[in-house]
Amino acid sequence: MNIGILGFGVVGGGAYHVLNKHAEAIAQRVGCRLAVTKVSDIDWQRDRPGLPPAEVRTDNSLAVVRDPEVEIIVECIGGVRPAKEYILEAIGTGKSVVTSNKELMAKHGAEVLDAAKAAQVDVEFEGSAGGVIPIVRALKESLEGNRIEQIVGILNGTTNYILTRMADEGLSFEQALAQAQELGYAEPNPEADINGDDAAYKLAILASIAFGKRIRIEDVYKEGVRGITPADIEYAKGMGYVVKLLAIAKNAREGAEVRVHPALLPQAHPLAAVKYEFNAVLVRGDAAGDVMLYGRGAGALPTGTAVVGDIISVARNIVRNATGRVVCSCQGEATVVPISEVEARRYVRMRVKDRPGVVGKIATIFGEEGVSLNSVIQQESRGASAEIVWVTHKVAERRFARALERIGELDVVEQATHVIRVEE
Amino acid sequence: MNIGILGFGVVGGGAYHVLNKHAEAIAQRVGCRLAVTKVSDIDWQRDRPGLPPAEVRTDNSLAVVRDPEVEIIVECIGGVRPAKEYILEAIGTGKSVVTSNKELMAKHGAEVLDAAKAAQVDVEFEGSAGGVIPIVRALKESLEGNRIEQIVGILNGTTNYILTRMADEGLSFEQALAQAQELGYAEPNPEADINGDDAAYKLAILASIAFGKRIRIEDVYKEGVRGITPADIEYAKGMGYVVKLLAIAKNAREGAEVRVHPALLPQAHPLAAVKYEFNAVLVRGDAAGDVMLYGRGAGALPTGTAVVGDIISVARNIVRNATGRVVCSCQGEATVVPISEVEARRYVRMRVKDRPGVVGKIATIFGEEGVSLNSVIQQESRGASAEIVWVTHKVAERRFARALERIGELDVVEQATHVIRVEE
Repeated sequence: MNIGILGFGVVGGGAYHVLNKHAEAIAQRVGCRLAVTKVSDIDWQRDRPGLPPAEVRTDNSLAVVRDPEVEIIVECIGGVRPAKEYILEAIGTGKSVVTSNKELMAKHGAEVLDAAKAAQVDVEFEGSAGGVIPIVRALKESLEGNRIEQIVGILNGTTNYILTRMADEGLSFEQALAQAQELGYAEPNPEADINGDDAAYKLAILASIAFGKRIRIEDVYKEGVRGITPADIEYAKGMGYVVKLLAIAKNAREGAEVRVHPALLPQAHPLAAVKYEFNAVLVRGDAAGDVMLYGRGAGALPTGTAVVGDIISVARNIVRNATGRVVCSCQGEATVVPISEVEARRYVRMRVKDRPGVVGKIATIFGEEGVSLNSVIQQESRGASAEIVWVTHKVAERRFARALERIGELDVVEQATHVIRVEE
Repeated sequence: MNIGILGFGVVGGGAYHVLNKHAEAIAQRVGCRLAVTKVSDIDWQRDRPGLPPAEVRTDNSLAVVRDPEVEIIVECIGGVRPAKEYILEAIGTGKSVVTSNKELMAKHGAEVLDAAKAAQVDVEFEGSAGGVIPIVRALKESLEGNRIEQIVGILNGTTNYILTRMADEGLSFEQALAQAQELGYAEPNPEADINGDDAAYKLAILASIAFGKRIRIEDVYKEGVRGITPADIEYAKGMGYVVKLLAIAKNAREGAEVRVHPALLPQAHPLAAVKYEFNAVLVRGDAAGDVMLYGRGAGALPTGTAVVGDIISVARNIVRNATGRVVCSCQGEATVVPISEVEARRYVRMRVKDRPGVVGKIATIFGEEGVSLNSVIQQESRGASAEIVWVTHKVAERRFARALERIGELDVVEQATHVIRVEE
C-alpha cells in the first residue's frame, strides 16, 4: 500500500522515520506492506537527517495528492493554506487522509470531516491534539459509552516547560523562554504557544469529539502566560498550588465552557505533577470517572508515533474495505457559555499604599459587588507600599471585573493587579 | 444488532447499565441499534439494582451462546470454567466476543485468540487489564509504530488502596484491609489481589501485546503485599520513596522480565502519585517515549465502560463486515529471564543486637558476595537491639539471596529481614 507524505518537517520526518524503522513489524500486523513512495516539501536544500531517496522526493504536493498509486495522504504541512485544498482534493479522489494539523482541524474540521463522511474515506488526526497521547482514539472509541462531562488538559508543551523552569528554578518568564528556545522546546517565534492559540486549537478539537457538538474556535476563550511572574508562582506554592496553562472544557446543561488560561491548581491534582514538555489530559465520563492520559505533546518521534498509529488504522480499513468505519458523529454546533458568565475562583495580587484602612476599603468593594473572599495575605511592607494577595470564592467574570474596576480607581492601589483563575 | 451478556455480576451489570443509558448516542455513532436480548446468570434471586426484564433473563448461558439472533457474546462470568467453553463455542459459531476475564485471557489467551483469528471474528478484552484505562487499544493500535521497551504499572486497585491508607494514615496492613473490605474496595476473599495474582494476570496480557510474544502466566514472578509494614513505609518516606505494588515488564535483548512485587518508587515518579483504588500504566516506546494512562481499575461502571467500548468496536466491524480487522499478532512465546538473574536495587530492614562491630560484620558479607551498598541508616537503639536499613545498588537476585542467607546465620541478627525491591 503506497503512502504519500506532504511536508518533511518535524512531524513528517518523524512519521517517515518511524514507518521505515518498524516496516517489518507493521507489515506483519497490518497484513500488507506500507511503502512511502512520495514525500513533498518546498525546500529540500535545508539540511535534515534521514532524507528520503531522490526518486521519492518532490516539491509538487499536488502531484502526490493526484498520484493514482498513492492510497493514503499524510498531511504534515501545517496551517490552513495550502493544506486544506490538498486534503479536500485527496478526499475528493477517494483517498484517506492522516493529518497532524491542529489549526486546520480546529478551524475547518467540520468541512473536512463532512467531506470524508460523504466520500466514505477516513480522516484521522490523532497527532493534531496532544502529540503522542492517544486521546482522540480514546474519545472516539474507548470512552464512547460515556457522556463526557469535562476535559481538563495541559495541551501545550512549550508553556508547560517554561512554567516548570520558572517554578523549580525561580527563572523569570523571559529567562525561561530563552532557555526553552535554546533547547528546542520553543520555536524562534513562540507566539502561538505563549498566547494560548496552540492549546485552544487542540481544546476545540477534543471538546468537539467529547461533547458530540462542534466547538467553533472563535468561541474558545484564551489568555496566555506572558503575565505570570515568579512572585505569583511563589505565592501559589505557599498556598499549596502550582501554576499551569490549562485547557478546560465543561459540558454543562446550559452550554459548553471552553477556555484556555493560566490557573492555580492544587499540588495534589493529578495534572499538577505534569512537568516540562509533557502534556496530559484528564477526562471525566459519567460512567468512567476520571481517566488521565499523559505523554510528550510534541517532537518528531512522539508526534510521528501518533501519525503512524493513524496510518496503520487507515491501512487496516483499506485492507478490509472498511474506510469510514468511524465517522464524525457531531450533531451541529455547541452553544458556548460566554466567558462573562463563567464562574471561577480568582487569585488577585496587588500593590497598595501602606496606610490604615486599605484592606478594609478593598474588601468592602469586593463585598458590595458580591465577590466573596476565601483568604487574604498581606506581606510585610516594603517602604511605603505593601503587597496583598486575595483568593476569592467562585464568582462570575462579569461581577469580578466590576469589582476590580472599582478597586483600580482607589488612589491607594499603586499598580495593575495580577489576576489568575483558581481551579480545583 | 443483538447482544447476549453472560454473567450479571459487577461488570456484566455495569456494561448492561452503560449500554442502556446511552443507547441513543451509541446507535447514532455505530449506525445501528444495539439491543441486549439475553442476559444469563446462575442466580437471579440475589438482590441487585437494575435487573433486566424477565424475557431477557435466563439461567442458561449455553442457550445464549447458541441463540442464532445474538451476534455479540459479552462474557462477564470470570474464571476459566465454564467461561472458556462458552467463548470457544461462540467463536466456533462465528460470533464475536467481548470479555473482561483476566484469568482466562492470561492463562488461555493464545488458544482463544488463535480460534478468533481462524474464524475471522473479534475477541476484545479491554476490560480484562486495567479496568477503564484504554491500554489494550493503545498498545494494539495507537502505539503500534513503536518497539515497546517496558511497561510499569499499578494494576491492582485493592492493594493500592491498602498501601495508600497505610501510608497516609499509618494503618497496619490488617486495619487497611479491613477498611478496604468495609468500603467494597476488597472482596471478602481478597487473596488473589493481595498475593499478586490479579496484577500478574493483567501484566501477562499487556506484556504479550506489547512485546508481540506470548507471556506464559507461569513465567510471571510474583510477590504480594502482606509483608509490608508501616515501618517500611515510614523508612521509605524518609528516604524520598513511596511503596507500591508494581507490575513490571521489560523487553530486553536477552529476554523479557515480567514480575509483580512491592517496590520503593521515588516520590517524583509519575506512578507515585497514583493513589487509592486508581490504576495506571506507564509505557515506554522507542519513538513515543513515556506514555501514561490512568483511571479506575475496577468497579461496575468503569469496567462496564471498557466493555461497552469493545462492544461498539465489534459492532462497527460487523456493520462493515470487517470483524478480525485487528487480530493477535503475537509470534510464539517469549523467552523470560528467570528471576534469579534479574537485577534490582534492594531495601533491607533488619533488627540486630546492639553490639560493637555488627554493622561492619554485615557490610563485610554484603561486600564479599558482591552486593554494593548505596546507603545505611541505623536508628537509635531500643534496649539491647537496633534496627538497620540498607539500600543496595543493583544486584542479581541470586547474589543477593546468598548474602542474605549468610547474614541470617549471624547470631547478632535477631529477626527475619524485610526486603523490598527499589525501582527508579
